[in-house]
Amino acid sequence: MTLKNRSLITVDDFSVGEMEGVFNLADEMAESITNQLDVCKGKVMASLFFESSTRTRLSFETAMHRLGGSVISAVDIGATSLAKGESIADMARVIGSYADIIVIRHPWEGAAKVVADYSGIPVINGGDGGHQHPTQTLCDLYTIRKERGSIAGMNIALWGDLKYGRTIHSLIFALAKFSANILFCPSPGLEVPEHVIQKLIAEYGGDIEKMTPEQKAKTDRFPLNAIYTTPNQPHQLAMMPGVDIELELKTGLDALYVTRPQKERFNDAEQQLKDKYPVVDKELLKDKSFRRAMVMHPLPRVDELAYELDSDPRSLYFKQAAQGVPVRMALVSLLLGMKDTKITENETSAPKYEYPIYKQDTGIKCPNKKCVSVQATEIRYLKPDFKIVNFKPLTLRCNYCEHGFEPKYVASTEWHEGMLVSKKYHSAGSHWSQHIKPENLLIFNSAKDAEAAGFKADIRVKKEAEANLSGT
Amino acid sequence: MTLKNRSLITVDDFSVGEMEGVFNLADEMAESITNQLDVCKGKVMASLFFESSTRTRLSFETAMHRLGGSVISAVDIGATSLAKGESIADMARVIGSYADIIVIRHPWEGAAKVVADYSGIPVINGGDGGHQHPTQTLCDLYTIRKERGSIAGMNIALWGDLKYGRTIHSLIFALAKFSANILFCPSPGLEVPEHVIQKLIAEYGGDIEKMTPEQKAKTDRFPLNAIYTTPNQPHQLAMMPGVDIELELKTGLDALYVTRPQKERFNDAEQQLKDKYPVVDKELLKDKSFRRAMVMHPLPRVDELAYELDSDPRSLYFKQAAQGVPVRMALVSLLLGMKDTKITENETSAPKYEYPIYKQDTGIKCPNKKCVSVQATEIRYLKPDFKIVNFKPLTLRCNYCEHGFEPKYVASTEWHEGMLVSKKYHSAGSHWSQHIKPENLLIFNSAKDAEAAGFKADIRVKKEAEANLSGT
Amino acid sequence: MTLKNRSLITVDDFSVGEMEGVFNLADEMAESITNQLDVCKGKVMASLFFESSTRTRLSFETAMHRLGGSVISAVDIGATSLAKGESIADMARVIGSYADIIVIRHPWEGAAKVVADYSGIPVINGGDGGHQHPTQTLCDLYTIRKERGSIAGMNIALWGDLKYGRTIHSLIFALAKFSANILFCPSPGLEVPEHVIQKLIAEYGGDIEKMTPEQKAKTDRFPLNAIYTTPNQPHQLAMMPGVDIELELKTGLDALYVTRPQKERFNDAEQQLKDKYPVVDKELLKDKSFRRAMVMHPLPRVDELAYELDSDPRSLYFKQAAQGVPVRMALVSLLLGMKDTKITENETSAPKYEYPIYKQDTGIKCPNKKCVSVQATEIRYLKPDFKIVNFKPLTLRCNYCEHGFEPKYVASTEWHEGMLVSKKYHSAGSHWSQHIKPENLLIFNSAKDAEAAGFKADIRVKKEAEANLSGT
Repeated sequence: MTLKNRSLITVDDFSVGEMEGVFNLADEMAESITNQLDVCKGKVMASLFFESSTRTRLSFETAMHRLGGSVISAVDIGATSLAKGESIADMARVIGSYADIIVIRHPWEGAAKVVADYSGIPVINGGDGGHQHPTQTLCDLYTIRKERGSIAGMNIALWGDLKYGRTIHSLIFALAKFSANILFCPSPGLEVPEHVIQKLIAEYGGDIEKMTPEQKAKTDRFPLNAIYTTPNQPHQLAMMPGVDIELELKTGLDALYVTRPQKERFNDAEQQLKDKYPVVDKELLKDKSFRRAMVMHPLPRVDELAYELDSDPRSLYFKQAAQGVPVRMALVSLLLGMKDTKITENETSAPKYEYPIYKQDTGIKCPNKKCVSVQATEIRYLKPDFKIVNFKPLTLRCNYCEHGFEPKYVASTEWHEGMLVSKKYHSAGSHWSQHIKPENLLIFNSAKDAEAAGFKADIRVKKEAEANLSGT
Repeated sequence: MTLKNRSLITVDDFSVGEMEGVFNLADEMAESITNQLDVCKGKVMASLFFESSTRTRLSFETAMHRLGGSVISAVDIGATSLAKGESIADMARVIGSYADIIVIRHPWEGAAKVVADYSGIPVINGGDGGHQHPTQTLCDLYTIRKERGSIAGMNIALWGDLKYGRTIHSLIFALAKFSANILFCPSPGLEVPEHVIQKLIAEYGGDIEKMTPEQKAKTDRFPLNAIYTTPNQPHQLAMMPGVDIELELKTGLDALYVTRPQKERFNDAEQQLKDKYPVVDKELLKDKSFRRAMVMHPLPRVDELAYELDSDPRSLYFKQAAQGVPVRMALVSLLLGMKDTKITENETSAPKYEYPIYKQDTGIKCPNKKCVSVQATEIRYLKPDFKIVNFKPLTLRCNYCEHGFEPKYVASTEWHEGMLVSKKYHSAGSHWSQHIKPENLLIFNSAKDAEAAGFKADIRVKKEAEANLSGT
Repeated sequence: MTLKNRSLITVDDFSVGEMEGVFNLADEMAESITNQLDVCKGKVMASLFFESSTRTRLSFETAMHRLGGSVISAVDIGATSLAKGESIADMARVIGSYADIIVIRHPWEGAAKVVADYSGIPVINGGDGGHQHPTQTLCDLYTIRKERGSIAGMNIALWGDLKYGRTIHSLIFALAKFSANILFCPSPGLEVPEHVIQKLIAEYGGDIEKMTPEQKAKTDRFPLNAIYTTPNQPHQLAMMPGVDIELELKTGLDALYVTRPQKERFNDAEQQLKDKYPVVDKELLKDKSFRRAMVMHPLPRVDELAYELDSDPRSLYFKQAAQGVPVRMALVSLLLGMKDTKITENETSAPKYEYPIYKQDTGIKCPNKKCVSVQATEIRYLKPDFKIVNFKPLTLRCNYCEHGFEPKYVASTEWHEGMLVSKKYHSAGSHWSQHIKPENLLIFNSAKDAEAAGFKADIRVKKEAEANLSGT
């Protein structure tokens, strides 16, 4: 298997088999980590960190040095030439002509994809805003696999801030892809966003079972609120109503994945939530459901994971961090084509859903303000690029930041010059949006955009507009 | 040819033949860029960036890594030990005892020369304020030469901000040195400074032909305002009045060198100029004068160069950036003495003008506030160092920042103890300044300085002083 | 001799013999500095600078590169993940799992010790607040030894800011350890702190002779105020009262070690002292006492050392800085176990004093606000750790920052359940503190802490409390 010249922007870029390939090579490299100095000799990695991240950056740079390669590094570059108004694409093209591989962290969601699109060399996403951090996920999965021998069928509890943690969302999809079961244990108010749940079910299959208030009442310090069960498993639990789901699963918990509150992303109302954030400590781990559970954490920790656990044999978070080096060594050498790896292609993941693409320039913009595609420096050259992930209601997903949204109006390209009277636009919620063929679909976010494109409101839209006017 | 232990502070430090030597080695290295790992093995480059510059810094560091050498790097060091009041000379001596070669970028003009004077190792100027950026010029010349086979006789249009671009001033002198013709196409209000024009004529020969208002009127989107023709060419154009100069030259344009507005250097009155800045786009390039013209740009670009040109085969700016690596590899390995290079020494450049030196400590200071020689930390040890570049009017040029200025008073060291009555100082504009032998010349910037040195005003100076007094 | 896996946090961590071992290897490496590329091939140094220090950091990084190793570097990391509330211990554990050796500079005193305690790999203190900077001291000692052939018996004058210079305090103890004599020449108001003098006498032996006002009057520009004479030397001077001590010693001065005023640490009252700071210049060095004296300085200098001395053959400060590279090369390769070194173990230093340890959790905290042990992020896991360095008065020394202080109350663990009446606490100044066996000693900093631990005030404490109450 070769991954030469591939990029890793989201966990979806690699199949289960390809990730297994990375893990196999990581195993091999971990065994003789000081003997890899010839693997990437003469290769140059550009390590571009537009946001601080000592840990992620240093583990990538260590990986490259242990492979015998060199590193050029730009840290906290918010204030440099890019501030002169340069675009990410221009920067990517220039650095792509210097280096052999790029690792990038950037506050704008989708920025790593732009770098991959323009640099001409392999790119690794080292974190793009609140979007993805796929190598953290690789390290998490590798740790579970190394300690348990497998990921499929494992029961993994996710604990704490399940709303804002970018590592958590990547991890959820990856666990589903690898056929693990997930127990959601959010800190109250920091539940997994609904769009993550929806994508999970729609694209990875399996079931979500939400806890009833009675079920929740039974668990005290263990704030379980939903369970995801993989479709690749005899789905006994959901099929047997009345079974005490949470106890059943808790008994066999394989890992407790703790996250810190991402306070810096909390809105004003959420600021107080950090005081109610549950702490994982010796007392909690006395519960028999944690008997065999590995305690994991992406680090840095603050107060949510007690220091007293550091000496507990179940605590694996420092080991998890240490595995960042061999996993990244394997990844870098594969993308550079300096190593191949044998894989056992048991593609257990659900096939990647093929959504229709929407690229018409009808004024549609991603509504996510942190999306790379709407930034002043990038909008000059980035074209609209969306997936139509749902027709009822019509839902677009930005191909840069993967943010989903429901646009307002639709029209069809299939009208004839002589039939100008039929050049109408319709409410996206009307039956029309399902009647227009995907390849003919035009989507607008405002009446103004639709009319600028030469369309006129249909009767329903007109009525709605009138109703709105008289309503005010 | 060896360039071992030489420094590159301004483009004047290298002869045409020496630059050709760099280009020849760059050609050789570009062909097998991954096979140069033994060239500088064990050598250490200090990369000292007192101002941000991701691009320049990373291309130097990449070059050193591809040569097998190591890099120590200090970025944004405004806030470090130098802020404790340390001088550049001290820093240079210390780093010079660690590393084998220094690359420095610094906001003070002339700072790189100080580093070269004190470090004891080869130094490359990576940009010193608004003064020079000679390796950018090397890359520009290399691109022209590589694409056109030669630089001599080429017609190069310089476009945009010709006032503040430091790369532009270096490039102008270098193009003249290589016997190219230059078409000045400034954005209105951002014309080439007069002192650049004067130096061009005085030191490099050739002619400047300014466009008449009628000639300008003919060109619409092409704001040509002057043409420099090299002396090494049959000077047909200037000799044939009536020939439509701009059209003649435009027909054969070899390169259009676009620059961004250096807004950060604009004064208040100039802020509005950025709105009138001309954009180079597909429409402009339809003009037949650009048929064969390479489009070049030192990057970063902002809005002055349309993204739609990126796919145009004439667009060479990303290639130009990419050549930064082989050119800098060649330069670094030559200065370190790890490579020699054959040259075809056809010294077509005008011989470097030998000006008299002025080093008397008569209180003369460079009037340029950004000059390294007038900074509080540097004035403690830097001695006056000027060239007398003109006697009529008497004009000094600072040997650090190359800023020129006209001092006020002169006197002669040739007076005798018993003749104290003859110890007079004179107005620099008077005939005296040409009567005093250069080796006897004393120069003052104020009456106070002259009197502190024991001189008395001559009659004319006295009369002027009286006139000034009564005038008020 | 092997120093493999050892750390260097304070100069006390190495014996005289071990330092000689470092110096011997530095000599060897300095002779063929470009031939050491295989020594640390494949090893990775983490260079973590939480405070700026271009000089120290670049000399470590150069050293590692000249040894053929690699460097991962984090500079000015105040603003990164540690700002998210991560502890130094967590950071140390993670980086310790990436790299092979850590160099750390941190503003908190004792931070380097925490890194050494938790990282699991060798750690070098690159400066921790005002505490220690041991590799600067190694370079200072190495320079003296290289130029004079020995350190023992040399007469070294320390000049300038002897109060705040962290390099000075390390140097004082190290010179004593190597049996040199020390002449203290402080800028008025910036004398050596009393606790340094006390430690010097108590732990290294020898004598301090303070100058009388009459003696001081004799010396004008030479502000000698005390002399330390090593116990390992025929102590003739102190034994012959009437001998003109300062003249005697000045005659044979081997080195004049100049320091800059550490203005950034001056309190408000001290700000004016910088105007009276003595300048070392040609005039001063005309004094015959400096005839053979090396002029040393840890750099950066500001105004305290005149530029005119740079060309004086006695000026060794740039050579001293240059020796930072071979000394650090030797140190790094020894700690990594890539080199051994022969030593001539003439342990002339006074044996390291073994103080009783105090680790009881009785609410005692280090009163030094810059100590790592009292920081919000570190107090969560760092336990009390002190040495009892004196019983009369009872004095604790923090094992992190080495700050000494006198706690208020004591009690004994030796009381019996049935004898609750005897569970009393006493004033630390009372005879009790010497009557309680060290292993039974409980120490409190406040009545509240003592009472929280179940003790009651004894009669004297009560009386004192009453006196205080009535006094107010």
